[in-house]
Amino acid sequence: MQATQQPAPRPGAYTPTGRTVPTRSADRASYDRELVHAILDEAYVCHLGFVRDGAPVVLPTLFARVGETLYVHGSTGSRPLRMTGKADPGLPVCLTVTHVDALVLARSAFHHSVNYRSAVVHGVAYDVTDPEEKRTALDALVDHVVPGRSADSRPADKKELAATAVIRLDLGEVSAKLRTGGVNDEPEDLALPHWAGVVPLRKGYGTPVGDPGLAPGTALPGYLGAL
Amino acid sequence: MQATQQPAPRPGAYTPTGRTVPTRSADRASYDRELVHAILDEAYVCHLGFVRDGAPVVLPTLFARVGETLYVHGSTGSRPLRMTGKADPGLPVCLTVTHVDALVLARSAFHHSVNYRSAVVHGVAYDVTDPEEKRTALDALVDHVVPGRSADSRPADKKELAATAVIRLDLGEVSAKLRTGGVNDEPEDLALPHWAGVVPLRKGYGTPVGDPGLAPGTALPGYLGAL
Repeated sequence: MQATQQPAPRPGAYTPTGRTVPTRSADRASYDRELVHAILDEAYVCHLGFVRDGAPVVLPTLFARVGETLYVHGSTGSRPLRMTGKADPGLPVCLTVTHVDALVLARSAFHHSVNYRSAVVHGVAYDVTDPEEKRTALDALVDHVVPGRSADSRPADKKELAATAVIRLDLGEVSAKLRTGGVNDEPEDLALPHWAGVVPLRKGYGTPVGDPGLAPGTALPGYLGAL
Repeated sequence: MQATQQPAPRPGAYTPTGRTVPTRSADRASYDRELVHAILDEAYVCHLGFVRDGAPVVLPTLFARVGETLYVHGSTGSRPLRMTGKADPGLPVCLTVTHVDALVLARSAFHHSVNYRSAVVHGVAYDVTDPEEKRTALDALVDHVVPGRSADSRPADKKELAATAVIRLDLGEVSAKLRTGGVNDEPEDLALPHWAGVVPLRKGYGTPVGDPGLAPGTALPGYLGAL
């Protein structure tokens, strides 16, 4: 049976595993479910890693989260998806999302850093074949770009559904890693004359540019004003 | 001999290979050297993929470009680097950088997209052991975060140099991929009442926040005002 039902509710943290416990800066790791969800939901693209002919491949891809499942977009001709399929045991993947929040300038070159939040998901991705689940996934992909948008666009028809491939990856083996805060200079460097501190990075939206061929009277939707 | 000398000058484009020619949207691929350099230089972190125990791993990492070489930062305790070393044949990696420039809202769910620029580098990464090359790499890593900054910070001492691991990856098998422009709706959808267009994403810098313990009289450096 295709797994279209929602996974059972889980407690507030993912269980650490051998490959989600970092070998360094372990104090920066987190398994908090809400934190992981927030990091994933804020990103427009993920970086999907898989193995092809024994070598690693990392490609940027649109994705969306529905509860404890990620849906990753790709055409049926794309490389990761050609390796999955009904009779396929699935494709081992690593899906990673990163936000850089600030530059950290220390007095010493060695302690320069960035403040960041990343989420890393290990697992096996499966082709979504159930039409209902595929439609749910496509709506989620559109709503991931702009919340509420799937209800304000023409839904995919049968041909488009068939032409779109989606893979699913359940959130099981997951970790977040983050650096926050200020500069960590050595005590003996504090009197050096170099400026040290944090430079925040800002993200925002520019003015929406309507398609020249918009139907007469088509107004900018409210959900874009809220961006 | 350690390869500390600069690679020979190359012409204006990378040579496509079996794994840098995409199987879909081939019209979005580019091998232009300047374009690839610009995409790489604009990113604060890359996503580094490698294979561990047969499974893919993708981690965000600081990096910098020096001519046709990328230097990737990591402590000697980190996972990718533990697999390299003097006697090691190197670590096959895939290093990917992506910028999302705009959201593309089509009248049809199917044609929703984002405008993006990505660069994908395939190759084998080697541990940097030559002290001179390592120092060059560390300066480049600091200057990649803020141009000119390495000259205005305390250089790494011997202990810090030893504690920092850097791997090098030459730019040989490289491609860029990009989507630009507006909406690509189907002709029969153009009269639909849904707003369609492009929402640009903006990036910028917030106000720098100085470390509370700055030496008296330490001014904000000019290169931060220029950010």
